[in-house]
Amino acid sequence: MKKIAILGSTGSIGTQTLEVVENQGDMEVTALAAGNNIRLLEEQIRKFMPKLVCVWNEEKAKELAVSVGDLPVRVVSGMEGLIEVATEPSADIVVTAVVGMIGIRPTIAAMEAGKDIALANKETLVTAGHIIMPLAKKQGVNILPVDSEHSAIFQCLNGENKKTIHKVLLTASGGPFRGKTREELKSVQVEDALKHPNWSMGRKITIDSSTMVNKGLEVMEAKWLFDVSMDQVEVVVQPKSIIHSMVEFEDGAVMAQLGTPDMKLPIQYALYYPERRFLPGERLDFWSLKEIAFEKPDMVNFPGLSLAYQAGRRGGTLPTVFNAANERAVEKFLNREISYLSITDMIEGAMNGHTVKENPTVEEILEAENAAYEYIESRW
Amino acid sequence: MKKIAILGSTGSIGTQTLEVVENQGDMEVTALAAGNNIRLLEEQIRKFMPKLVCVWNEEKAKELAVSVGDLPVRVVSGMEGLIEVATEPSADIVVTAVVGMIGIRPTIAAMEAGKDIALANKETLVTAGHIIMPLAKKQGVNILPVDSEHSAIFQCLNGENKKTIHKVLLTASGGPFRGKTREELKSVQVEDALKHPNWSMGRKITIDSSTMVNKGLEVMEAKWLFDVSMDQVEVVVQPKSIIHSMVEFEDGAVMAQLGTPDMKLPIQYALYYPERRFLPGERLDFWSLKEIAFEKPDMVNFPGLSLAYQAGRRGGTLPTVFNAANERAVEKFLNREISYLSITDMIEGAMNGHTVKENPTVEEILEAENAAYEYIESRW
Repeated sequence: MKKIAILGSTGSIGTQTLEVVENQGDMEVTALAAGNNIRLLEEQIRKFMPKLVCVWNEEKAKELAVSVGDLPVRVVSGMEGLIEVATEPSADIVVTAVVGMIGIRPTIAAMEAGKDIALANKETLVTAGHIIMPLAKKQGVNILPVDSEHSAIFQCLNGENKKTIHKVLLTASGGPFRGKTREELKSVQVEDALKHPNWSMGRKITIDSSTMVNKGLEVMEAKWLFDVSMDQVEVVVQPKSIIHSMVEFEDGAVMAQLGTPDMKLPIQYALYYPERRFLPGERLDFWSLKEIAFEKPDMVNFPGLSLAYQAGRRGGTLPTVFNAANERAVEKFLNREISYLSITDMIEGAMNGHTVKENPTVEEILEAENAAYEYIESRW
Repeated sequence: MKKIAILGSTGSIGTQTLEVVENQGDMEVTALAAGNNIRLLEEQIRKFMPKLVCVWNEEKAKELAVSVGDLPVRVVSGMEGLIEVATEPSADIVVTAVVGMIGIRPTIAAMEAGKDIALANKETLVTAGHIIMPLAKKQGVNILPVDSEHSAIFQCLNGENKKTIHKVLLTASGGPFRGKTREELKSVQVEDALKHPNWSMGRKITIDSSTMVNKGLEVMEAKWLFDVSMDQVEVVVQPKSIIHSMVEFEDGAVMAQLGTPDMKLPIQYALYYPERRFLPGERLDFWSLKEIAFEKPDMVNFPGLSLAYQAGRRGGTLPTVFNAANERAVEKFLNREISYLSITDMIEGAMNGHTVKENPTVEEILEAENAAYEYIESRW
């Protein structure tokens, strides 16, 4: 029986991962980690009976330990605890669905412990791709993408030689503000930005989709995952999000993966790769669909994407700064401290003010992150 | 160096196969077979220097033998010669691009001689799939589809387990008469039917595309090639022929292959499978493309497709009758002996008048073919 550990089990990807596990019924959950939603975590513990759980917040961990005192589960906390979950000896695969830079160390630890990674943490590859990808090769572990676009590309590469990739065509919905000018975007409120046309996701990623910063992060991830250059990754706006992404090969053939917007598909694909299994849910209906339309991404009114290309091309610590500045800016926007357009202005400012360090270590990545945070605090 | 024999070297697929071979420059052409275009065949002989060539027509073979008397090439003729070409000892792969039932025996002979088959002859699988597919398995040879749709499906199945196919989505342009009613189709002339919207092909296949008989034959081929039922093959009309076909898997994922309408892609893919190589030519341009639209096939005004489903579901000798009746009917239409709508009427009549034989041998298939020819001669 395949054994699984989940970092971020109470989030959107974490809960859907557990749905897949429950539905398939032939995986064992050995360890779970959550931020502070101990109510949901307790439910998960009682249902899946892991040996080990981590709660990021120490106080909450203590609270949980009391309430699950009747069960044979050990409760740990903090980064040390998160790493313990990531390296839980019996797990075969670790789903890294925590949000933010805290995902990097546990991911590295899991790989060093020989685990396959079902990767749902964007920051890992964006900031530390130069560390992660060679490590995966050295350790002989799989990095299995858990998001719709990269899973699609990964599926398109099934049985193919990566060296024959000509272009990766990363699709984008264009977000709720597609077609709007910067002038029109001035007045965007939090409520407007939280309405994604096709996918139901967490708050931060929904904002990131609206600014196309998310697509920019995905381009950088694709570069690392599929060993291509930034310029080989082309963003294609496809408003209905039916085509989840495509690959054009040397011979001109374009392979695409299409589907309904259901995150359980890439999750299940990663967990059981290379096997495909029945997944209950809606199927793509070409008759009600009628058509798939394509557009060029608007890099002018949505500078998030062009800034990402800049960061990814330059490399070093610049992608970290791009990501950290965006993280902090979105937080401020969600707290109604800054305007919508200030998000990308803040990213641009932080990038311009940064002196890039090449091939940064994890420590240097975290330093660059902090520097970006400080820069933003000092300026806005 | 990979060695290739081509049956039907002077036809559309044959000449494009030689273009691919010439362009790649690392295959040896060991044998060629043509119908009666000895002028073109001689050019091919002088360029590719095969050891053996076959001309179907005996008189033409003699004529050619004289004109290539200066070269170390043996000229043979008829079915015996065709089989000699198909089994030429040094060939690794045989491209079967002859049109019609004469493709069956040489294909079987080539497989028995252990050759991989790049299959461009529709009749082989439509009429004798129950013989061909088990033979391929027994002999351990590959059947590599050389047409746009089946190559697309084959590419979608790269690295996948065929058992997880839920549906094969075979795309169709809908032909030049898409959207027309039977009333409007009454007056169709040969010139109208020879205008295909996307592909430039031979005359018979262009007519077959306009009646959707071609799509029906493809559905039957797909059934055999990919080991699915007729009802698992769904025809999706996609007027621009951008998506060459798709596969929906058990998990709901749909894989698609897209491209420009260039037959050299499936030809090259079959010749070098599983390798992809650079192929000069136009690339799919999503910006000029703008959109891909889908429609249900019109089975009422285009009964060719529903008759094919009937034939394929019933099996035995019925697909042979469907194909033979169509072949003869198209010939009569091209000779302006019958009207456009009579093509499918003739197929229906022949099918209704036929007593199906189960699991027919090659002889029984050829008998059923003759019976269909006779039926049509006697009635029209």
